Amino acid sequence: MAKDVESDHPPPAFSAKDYHDPPPAPLFDLDELTKWSFYRALIAEFIATLLFLYITVLTVIGYKSAADAACGGVGVLGIAWAFGGMIFILVYCTAGISGGHINPAVTFGLFLGRKVSLIRAVGYMAAQCLGAICGCGLVKAFQKSYYTRYGGGANELAAGYNKGTGLGAEIIGTFVLVYTVFSATDPKRSARDSHVPVLAPLPIGFAVFMVHLATIPITGTGINPARSFGAAVIYNKDKAWDDQWIFWVGPFIGAAIAAFYHQFVLRAAAIKALGSFRSNA
Amino acid sequence: MAKDVESDHPPPAFSAKDYHDPPPAPLFDLDELTKWSFYRALIAEFIATLLFLYITVLTVIGYKSAADAACGGVGVLGIAWAFGGMIFILVYCTAGISGGHINPAVTFGLFLGRKVSLIRAVGYMAAQCLGAICGCGLVKAFQKSYYTRYGGGANELAAGYNKGTGLGAEIIGTFVLVYTVFSATDPKRSARDSHVPVLAPLPIGFAVFMVHLATIPITGTGINPARSFGAAVIYNKDKAWDDQWIFWVGPFIGAAIAAFYHQFVLRAAAIKALGSFRSNA
Amino acid sequence: MAKDVESDHPPPAFSAKDYHDPPPAPLFDLDELTKWSFYRALIAEFIATLLFLYITVLTVIGYKSAADAACGGVGVLGIAWAFGGMIFILVYCTAGISGGHINPAVTFGLFLGRKVSLIRAVGYMAAQCLGAICGCGLVKAFQKSYYTRYGGGANELAAGYNKGTGLGAEIIGTFVLVYTVFSATDPKRSARDSHVPVLAPLPIGFAVFMVHLATIPITGTGINPARSFGAAVIYNKDKAWDDQWIFWVGPFIGAAIAAFYHQFVLRAAAIKALGSFRSNA
Amino acid sequence: MAKDVESDHPPPAFSAKDYHDPPPAPLFDLDELTKWSFYRALIAEFIATLLFLYITVLTVIGYKSAADAACGGVGVLGIAWAFGGMIFILVYCTAGISGGHINPAVTFGLFLGRKVSLIRAVGYMAAQCLGAICGCGLVKAFQKSYYTRYGGGANELAAGYNKGTGLGAEIIGTFVLVYTVFSATDPKRSARDSHVPVLAPLPIGFAVFMVHLATIPITGTGINPARSFGAAVIYNKDKAWDDQWIFWVGPFIGAAIAAFYHQFVLRAAAIKALGSFRSNA
Repeated sequence: MAKDVESDHPPPAFSAKDYHDPPPAPLFDLDELTKWSFYRALIAEFIATLLFLYITVLTVIGYKSAADAACGGVGVLGIAWAFGGMIFILVYCTAGISGGHINPAVTFGLFLGRKVSLIRAVGYMAAQCLGAICGCGLVKAFQKSYYTRYGGGANELAAGYNKGTGLGAEIIGTFVLVYTVFSATDPKRSARDSHVPVLAPLPIGFAVFMVHLATIPITGTGINPARSFGAAVIYNKDKAWDDQWIFWVGPFIGAAIAAFYHQFVLRAAAIKALGSFRSNA
Repeated sequence: MAKDVESDHPPPAFSAKDYHDPPPAPLFDLDELTKWSFYRALIAEFIATLLFLYITVLTVIGYKSAADAACGGVGVLGIAWAFGGMIFILVYCTAGISGGHINPAVTFGLFLGRKVSLIRAVGYMAAQCLGAICGCGLVKAFQKSYYTRYGGGANELAAGYNKGTGLGAEIIGTFVLVYTVFSATDPKRSARDSHVPVLAPLPIGFAVFMVHLATIPITGTGINPARSFGAAVIYNKDKAWDDQWIFWVGPFIGAAIAAFYHQFVLRAAAIKALGSFRSNA
Repeated sequence: MAKDVESDHPPPAFSAKDYHDPPPAPLFDLDELTKWSFYRALIAEFIATLLFLYITVLTVIGYKSAADAACGGVGVLGIAWAFGGMIFILVYCTAGISGGHINPAVTFGLFLGRKVSLIRAVGYMAAQCLGAICGCGLVKAFQKSYYTRYGGGANELAAGYNKGTGLGAEIIGTFVLVYTVFSATDPKRSARDSHVPVLAPLPIGFAVFMVHLATIPITGTGINPARSFGAAVIYNKDKAWDDQWIFWVGPFIGAAIAAFYHQFVLRAAAIKALGSFRSNA
Repeated sequence: MAKDVESDHPPPAFSAKDYHDPPPAPLFDLDELTKWSFYRALIAEFIATLLFLYITVLTVIGYKSAADAACGGVGVLGIAWAFGGMIFILVYCTAGISGGHINPAVTFGLFLGRKVSLIRAVGYMAAQCLGAICGCGLVKAFQKSYYTRYGGGANELAAGYNKGTGLGAEIIGTFVLVYTVFSATDPKRSARDSHVPVLAPLPIGFAVFMVHLATIPITGTGINPARSFGAAVIYNKDKAWDDQWIFWVGPFIGAAIAAFYHQFVLRAAAIKALGSFRSNA
């Protein structure tokens, strides 16, 4: 019995840790640059974004080439699964290494929420964009004939929608994602509701899945500037570049609103009162 | 610090709490009205229902416009996923803030089970209906040309089914959902079976997914009066309003039966005996 | 209070319990008949099987009527999800009440593994069959015109397959399900690997989902005698009755093999040595 | 050691168990051959791979025969689910018995990471290949007429892709899978992030699902030499054998890169600093 007690969470240490917010990340933390863990996190973000774009754009191209031959292929539902499922896997795998952002909008939101320093935020975004370019490059190398014919997985505003609609769709879509990220990684909630940290990567992946179901017909769904940028660099057609700003401005605005909503509305008054039937203990 | 400890699980209280039912919520608790947490919960319900309707109705409209052009679109399966997946995400995100109802029928069932006060129940329902209207309004703004043409995501009884069938489908569908909610949030079960609180949002989301698979052909699947009401307000055609009562009476009856089943059948005799091979410890 | 402590996990007993098998269930336990928990478990099994058949057969009928009008409907994939997803939800909801069998083959397997008494096994099977009949009856009442036209969701051997193939498909399919149930509820594993009891209902639901993907084209997939029996009673055509024995004999053989495999192969030598890289701590 | 304690969640008790790596598995461990647990693990791998191939290849054949008759069948999305879902179930069921490899590439990667001995690795691979052959044999027995007509579920390079593309697709696909396996079973991460061991089988199954979505159009997706070998043995046509080397060389290279990436990049410097917003406690 003694050994059991030893190897588990001892209650006193636990409560001390769990009911204080961690201090906000410093804006500039030059110290980070001297740590291997910082560079390892950049590598992890680079590889994760590369794999994300590789799998998802390959699915998009494969679906479209199959769709030419009647209703084969995985369908739009399969594409939405590819985006959501990859985010689930990659957040799960990289959460302990880099925090599992894989998306400049998520990094931006967490920077605004003072969860990461400016240096880390800039480093992550660069690694993500580079990873996305490499991932799309691999798809182009593997799918020479189909890649350009089927649009290279690039985000473009669909015919019949104006720029305002596209921007709005990106803002709300990114809000859904970043709001879920904040909810999943909230240290207070993690301490309180046992299900929060356990499931965390799953609702984050589902948020991406859901937004793709809803907005693929409008913008192809960005909600991730690295994904839109990487595809545009490799595809490199006018339309993809003309609409590119939508896929940066929209996600950044959506992430900012989510950070604001979480920090100033939901967390206001420091969780003084929970007001939920589930926490009326 | 003192206040935090108050509102969270203090370790000593834990064992005491787990084997006693919390006292029933008071019918009128005017005290709630003086707490920020009450208004924050209303905001969380409003935003969650808005996002729920926005994503799901956008998926419905997008699917139908794609279906016009051969076999594109996410299919009925994708629509069912949109409803179920959004409930999974939103219950996960708002459970710690408002309890994660996002549905007047769930609020009604939990009110009958004395988990929330009357004031809170009425406030939640108003916030949910308002959120649903705003969510549908956003879809209409984004999808001007398609919104009305494809039925606005409104719930209507399909041709060939009589009102009794529609009402029955809504009653049983809501029963499935609210029964799952009661099972997932039962404080006794949470104490006993470790998997219950960890997975909780997932089976609740799946319950919504399943009911949509089964009853989309009959009523389009309501099981959520706010969802049906919001869509009807924005779509505003006769048929949607004529059938509207089905989507209030059905879910409320279903929720009442689920509350009765859980409180008087399953919880009767206070879990005196567990009667299951899994709990024969 | 004393009685509650008795029936729940008392902390000191926990460590003792986790590394000892619970004693096998008695063959006849007349004492059970005097407990409310026994009758409550029967009610829970009845309601769960009713809901299972209601949702799944409604999905089958709705899919087929939509399929008539081009490629609408949720597809075979949607049907497989309906069966698997409902089992996930219902096992989650009823696990703490009745053990969450919802299937005579599961009950039979657990009886062979001495997890439930004979009296309980017979009672569960009767409740399950009755629930299945009522669930199918509801679908017929709601879908008068389509129910018979689209085969009533009854299990029949598809054209081109002989009885041996059908029987084999049912045996292996049920083996997959009951093997998963044994793995998920193994008290030794639950003690050792923290993920086992937490996820338990999910892989059980997925087992049902997977087997449906594979064998819907062969037998429509039974692997649950109550499901096949209930549909046959309400549909009541010759073919469904002629093949009925396959859907009892197959699942019972599959469950018996799974019970044997788990008890005599995997659990042999009492987990003395774990032999896995994951448990060499 | 001091530095480890610094950067992780403190409690002293915790560190005893959790912050030492288990020693690497010995290269040759003849002692294993005398233990029942070793042979039990071989049996578990054999049965699991048999069930994996049985369900997945049956789904492939059933889909194709249904696709002949218009848009029936589970679709390519259903096939991808069958592969991913089965891996989820089987990893869940066999993790505590054999570690849940079910794939020679996973075994090879874990051998390179010194998680299993050479003797165990060779034994597992033999059991997996044998299981795969038996699983495919069952499908052929059940589906005589369709099995050969629909390609026997064998992996072949699709028309229009060169061998380099196929090899690359297999390498990256297996990298995604084995990287996820390493992340899910990392003893350091398991100690640190509570969600890691709980969810483990789910992201592993999703990794398989995702890779199938992306590469079914290119190679039919191997990423599992036993799966490709078993299907080739039973199908036994020239094309399947000519391309067979791709499905051994590719997965083994991918697994080796994943092992290298995890051990030398992510785990380098022994988790000295975590560098993530989630672990700055």
